[in-house]
Amino acid sequence: MSEIKQKPLRKGEQTRASILEAALELASREGLEGLTIGALAERMGMSKSGVFAHFGSREDLQLDVLRLYHQQFEQEVFFPSMLLPRGLPRLRSLFNRWIERVSREIASGCIYISGAVEYDDRPGPIRDQLVGMVQTWQRALQRSARQSADEGHLPSGTDPDQLAFEMYGLVLALHHDARFIRSPDAVQRAQKGFERLLNS
Amino acid sequence: MSEIKQKPLRKGEQTRASILEAALELASREGLEGLTIGALAERMGMSKSGVFAHFGSREDLQLDVLRLYHQQFEQEVFFPSMLLPRGLPRLRSLFNRWIERVSREIASGCIYISGAVEYDDRPGPIRDQLVGMVQTWQRALQRSARQSADEGHLPSGTDPDQLAFEMYGLVLALHHDARFIRSPDAVQRAQKGFERLLNS
Repeated sequence: MSEIKQKPLRKGEQTRASILEAALELASREGLEGLTIGALAERMGMSKSGVFAHFGSREDLQLDVLRLYHQQFEQEVFFPSMLLPRGLPRLRSLFNRWIERVSREIASGCIYISGAVEYDDRPGPIRDQLVGMVQTWQRALQRSARQSADEGHLPSGTDPDQLAFEMYGLVLALHHDARFIRSPDAVQRAQKGFERLLNS
Repeated sequence: MSEIKQKPLRKGEQTRASILEAALELASREGLEGLTIGALAERMGMSKSGVFAHFGSREDLQLDVLRLYHQQFEQEVFFPSMLLPRGLPRLRSLFNRWIERVSREIASGCIYISGAVEYDDRPGPIRDQLVGMVQTWQRALQRSARQSADEGHLPSGTDPDQLAFEMYGLVLALHHDARFIRSPDAVQRAQKGFERLLNS
């Protein structure tokens, strides 16, 4: 998904990229629905029409923010894990990098997790794109769990979809307890849960 | 927490109770922040000042809605489970009744779960009350897990807080997959995860 730019960004592209970065920060904190052109313009010291010139509509902006989030997630969590051997090394790396990312996001909030609650009954293009991205990620976890069983790194009776479901649950519990309850040991609990999951 | 009323409700109390029921339904669907006096008045066919007469402020109304939700949760999930023998029978009942309740709430959403995302960085009395209620529930799970180990129903090395954390994760994953992804087998996965949790 990541586009490799050969040439340096032109001025317009640079401005667009910095608006998008600010929009992502705002959306992480306030939710995608809290992302308004007005708040963004204020933050950038631009006029609303200046922001509109770079994004056709608020919805286009929200969709672009989601795409940027997804790219960053892939670059931090998915791609580096794919460099490791198939099976458990890759699965462990997917989980650990995911945990690491969510831990860093505790101050702001994870757009996949808070977006799931924000858009669970709000139909439309944003929900559709968000569901697509989360499903892509869930399928990556399922595939890697299946490969771990195929490689003999996990017992042959392993249900990869079940394993992926439970991994997701551990990360949701981490996000919930760290961000909402402010529990100090949530990361450790998620890691311990993953080890138990692999050993059972 | 449930108050037992000896006398039939007076007219004012009846009206207040039906406003509160409607408010709870609205908050389950739209989130606690989506609960406005205006929307509620419209739904009840009352004037805004008529609604205000029963609740001092919007925040008081939100807090009362939370209390009602908590009472219902206790009556459906907690109290009936306490009638069972300490240890695993009670722990199983807490989990199964919780799953059952969340499954019925899939159409509307669970206020504890969506509230956690809504209020994770919104300080104030609503957040405080919500955190208190969720922690009360988490402690009930931890206590029941501890008793299960004490009764010898679970291996002696069992970490009750870890078990409760993972149970919470399974229910969060169920809510996420059923409500956001619309996955048909989320309930089954949560149940399967719980069995694996007890057997590992």
